[in-house]
Amino acid sequence: MAELKRSFATDCLKGTSQVFFMENAVTGALFFVAMAYASYASGVWATTIGSAVGVVVATLTARLLECDEKSIESGLFGFNGVLVGAALPTFIAASPQLWVYVVVGSAASTVITAAFSATLTAKWGIPGSTGPFVLTGWLMVAGAYSFGALDVTGDAPKLATDYLQGLQPIPAPIELVQIFFRNIGQVYLLGSEISGVIILLGIFIASVPAGIAAALGSLVAMVVSIGMGADPVVVSQGLYGFSPVLTAMAVGLIFLEKSPRVAIYALLATVVTVFVQGALDVIVSPMGIPSFTAPYVLTMYLFIAPKKLLAPHPHQPVAGHMVGRAKPGAAVAGS
Amino acid sequence: MAELKRSFATDCLKGTSQVFFMENAVTGALFFVAMAYASYASGVWATTIGSAVGVVVATLTARLLECDEKSIESGLFGFNGVLVGAALPTFIAASPQLWVYVVVGSAASTVITAAFSATLTAKWGIPGSTGPFVLTGWLMVAGAYSFGALDVTGDAPKLATDYLQGLQPIPAPIELVQIFFRNIGQVYLLGSEISGVIILLGIFIASVPAGIAAALGSLVAMVVSIGMGADPVVVSQGLYGFSPVLTAMAVGLIFLEKSPRVAIYALLATVVTVFVQGALDVIVSPMGIPSFTAPYVLTMYLFIAPKKLLAPHPHQPVAGHMVGRAKPGAAVAGS
Amino acid sequence: MAELKRSFATDCLKGTSQVFFMENAVTGALFFVAMAYASYASGVWATTIGSAVGVVVATLTARLLECDEKSIESGLFGFNGVLVGAALPTFIAASPQLWVYVVVGSAASTVITAAFSATLTAKWGIPGSTGPFVLTGWLMVAGAYSFGALDVTGDAPKLATDYLQGLQPIPAPIELVQIFFRNIGQVYLLGSEISGVIILLGIFIASVPAGIAAALGSLVAMVVSIGMGADPVVVSQGLYGFSPVLTAMAVGLIFLEKSPRVAIYALLATVVTVFVQGALDVIVSPMGIPSFTAPYVLTMYLFIAPKKLLAPHPHQPVAGHMVGRAKPGAAVAGS
Repeated sequence: MAELKRSFATDCLKGTSQVFFMENAVTGALFFVAMAYASYASGVWATTIGSAVGVVVATLTARLLECDEKSIESGLFGFNGVLVGAALPTFIAASPQLWVYVVVGSAASTVITAAFSATLTAKWGIPGSTGPFVLTGWLMVAGAYSFGALDVTGDAPKLATDYLQGLQPIPAPIELVQIFFRNIGQVYLLGSEISGVIILLGIFIASVPAGIAAALGSLVAMVVSIGMGADPVVVSQGLYGFSPVLTAMAVGLIFLEKSPRVAIYALLATVVTVFVQGALDVIVSPMGIPSFTAPYVLTMYLFIAPKKLLAPHPHQPVAGHMVGRAKPGAAVAGS
Repeated sequence: MAELKRSFATDCLKGTSQVFFMENAVTGALFFVAMAYASYASGVWATTIGSAVGVVVATLTARLLECDEKSIESGLFGFNGVLVGAALPTFIAASPQLWVYVVVGSAASTVITAAFSATLTAKWGIPGSTGPFVLTGWLMVAGAYSFGALDVTGDAPKLATDYLQGLQPIPAPIELVQIFFRNIGQVYLLGSEISGVIILLGIFIASVPAGIAAALGSLVAMVVSIGMGADPVVVSQGLYGFSPVLTAMAVGLIFLEKSPRVAIYALLATVVTVFVQGALDVIVSPMGIPSFTAPYVLTMYLFIAPKKLLAPHPHQPVAGHMVGRAKPGAAVAGS
Repeated sequence: MAELKRSFATDCLKGTSQVFFMENAVTGALFFVAMAYASYASGVWATTIGSAVGVVVATLTARLLECDEKSIESGLFGFNGVLVGAALPTFIAASPQLWVYVVVGSAASTVITAAFSATLTAKWGIPGSTGPFVLTGWLMVAGAYSFGALDVTGDAPKLATDYLQGLQPIPAPIELVQIFFRNIGQVYLLGSEISGVIILLGIFIASVPAGIAAALGSLVAMVVSIGMGADPVVVSQGLYGFSPVLTAMAVGLIFLEKSPRVAIYALLATVVTVFVQGALDVIVSPMGIPSFTAPYVLTMYLFIAPKKLLAPHPHQPVAGHMVGRAKPGAAVAGS
């Protein structure tokens, strides 16, 4: 029984570390230290408690649904739950119904993780990654507007024309250092640079190349977002950097084998993620929801989907259509 | 010829009953009685006539396109058409162009049903269900704003911040009974509790377990939506209940084999549907469109997609990527 | 080396012609003449230069990523890039960062083309067509609002209720001729009827049936959009016609084998595209982005997806679900 509890705790801490693609309980524990530090600094503990509830409920749900044992032990059913648990109390004021929401949302994140695995992963070879968190988070935050017992804080909807225009001053060097670490902390929705330092330390403990990839992703995001004149307030909070950090790790290191070509490919993906961050902020804002890690998820899906020997459909008849007959002898690739 | 006409009428009535997963012409006829009662009570007959036109055109289109014979006879090509035909006159004022719209939309619903079958169903094992209706309905109602000959009534766009906040009083017992039946009637976009009674009767005639599942879905939706403090005006119209009713039936009875575990799984799905209802109302509102049965469709897809023995993609290289080489000997699940 | 350069130029011109499904360098050259004419008439050369940069970068990226050789030579990796290059300078004011944006966007369009091929085409048999352009274009234009160095011109967001209502006068005959040709020019985002004439000429040079299909698509779009009372200013610019032109060609000629049944099917698809144009204009407008060729892409995907012998999922248990057991002996189609 004690063994079982210890093992379950390990599954949950590994799940916490999997947010950064690591499978290391010590790293996961450090991530909780980073969250606790931010809670201590801000006086808001609901986010850290929510994360703990989220990873426990999500992992437990995976056990109850008898999901793949090895995946549960690797923490692959926990990392979307920990993010749901961190995100909901960040955007919704505390109330009894918030905790119902966190529990149901975390449990749903496990079902959605299984759904992504059965479709995106099993059929298209695309890792689901934090896609289930993004979907769950969007639905829960948007839903909160409809329920009087839930009070959405921050993130008032704005339209595209409300955005800042014109060039912005470049931040001072000390602020650049803060941005560098906040870019990493914001993956866990933490605006504290100290939390970012602790998280980066946790990544290096688990894997030095992963730590380097995360750092490079943060640097690229900083250069591109400032160079394109993004809103300095948003850049300063690290909100342009967390998705590119994940893209740099995922495309450059985790899901593709390291090589110079992959490095350039990952650089392109990381730059694109900064642009997609700008885009999704505008696109989801009328709905009153934050973009979460959607810029990383969308870009990573698109950059990981291409397979060797693929060819776009030629401009010729497709095979086996209900209405048309395929031209006899026509070369019909990809159908 | 008379035989053919009789058989075609049966196909259409079965299609009408398939909205609630039944294949029973008497049930379909009762559903038309429920629609006719609501038309009689409101004085608006365009919705009932639209439903008839919709199911006839959709079924006829399936015949002309030589879709799967057995599916046509089961009504599986008709139920999206009947909903398109009911929905368009509900949201668009009557005009000659509205009827062009109903006919083209119903015909398109059959093509879209075939498209969902060839992708979602054939490749991912997910039933299309009323997804084609939701997509067709969204496109047609949104399009109506662009066309001067079509006048969209009701459902003015609102932004997330326009929503009601704070706790709401619990409705009186008599109103709870009305809500219980309206939750069922609104699947057919009917706000009348009498219509809800007739529809529930029609379901029980076809299948007692289906009737019980529908009733439980309505109850769960009522408890959750009131407990979360949803807008009492919206709850009272039955608009928080119709999607959960469908989810309870689909996940608890129709698409999964009955068992205590499935019952708990369906309960989670039904609760999630209420939250997704709140979410989609907010998300689609800036576009001026109603959410239709999208909360059911999205939740059901996510809860039915997971397959046995699935595992999320591990945080390791994917196989066969255009750019990266897979690590030799790396375990690459799900690709 | 000269040979290589000549061959590369041919690949790019073929890519330019593939926007209209042709594989003909002369046609591609004529399309550039059409763009240059519009630039000459308006004094804005950034769009023509952008198109050239777009097709070169996209084709070059495909070479660097070692995409399918035959597809590159057919121009199938170029046509999304040429449209990205034409679209970005149309909606974003010129600046150094715009050109960074065009280069990164065109390179990304090749990755996204490969991603669509590996998923939509390889698994569902649906041609990606200009879907990658639409996705890239949406992300880049939406993103531009977030970046101070990029200035979005035109297309202020509006909500559904801002649309014109009531019937509109029918345009004069001479204007109908202009609309007919602008419908074709707008595929390349050109509002000039002269450019439309040159493009139609280019199509006829490559294929007479393709030219006829394009002309018929333009006619149908004109009749339907005017008949439905669409905003005459928008109709007059050819903005209701360019997607239907592509649908008429794609569904009636390119992706299905010609037959009387396919002709009727293509007519339905073309009419539906006009409605979807009206819908997507409303749906994407709150995000401040244009609909691009999305009405064609969505409609074409839905009309090309259906396959022979498909059947919707019956309302019976699906096979192999994580939670439920399939009924022994149950007929479980499509899973």
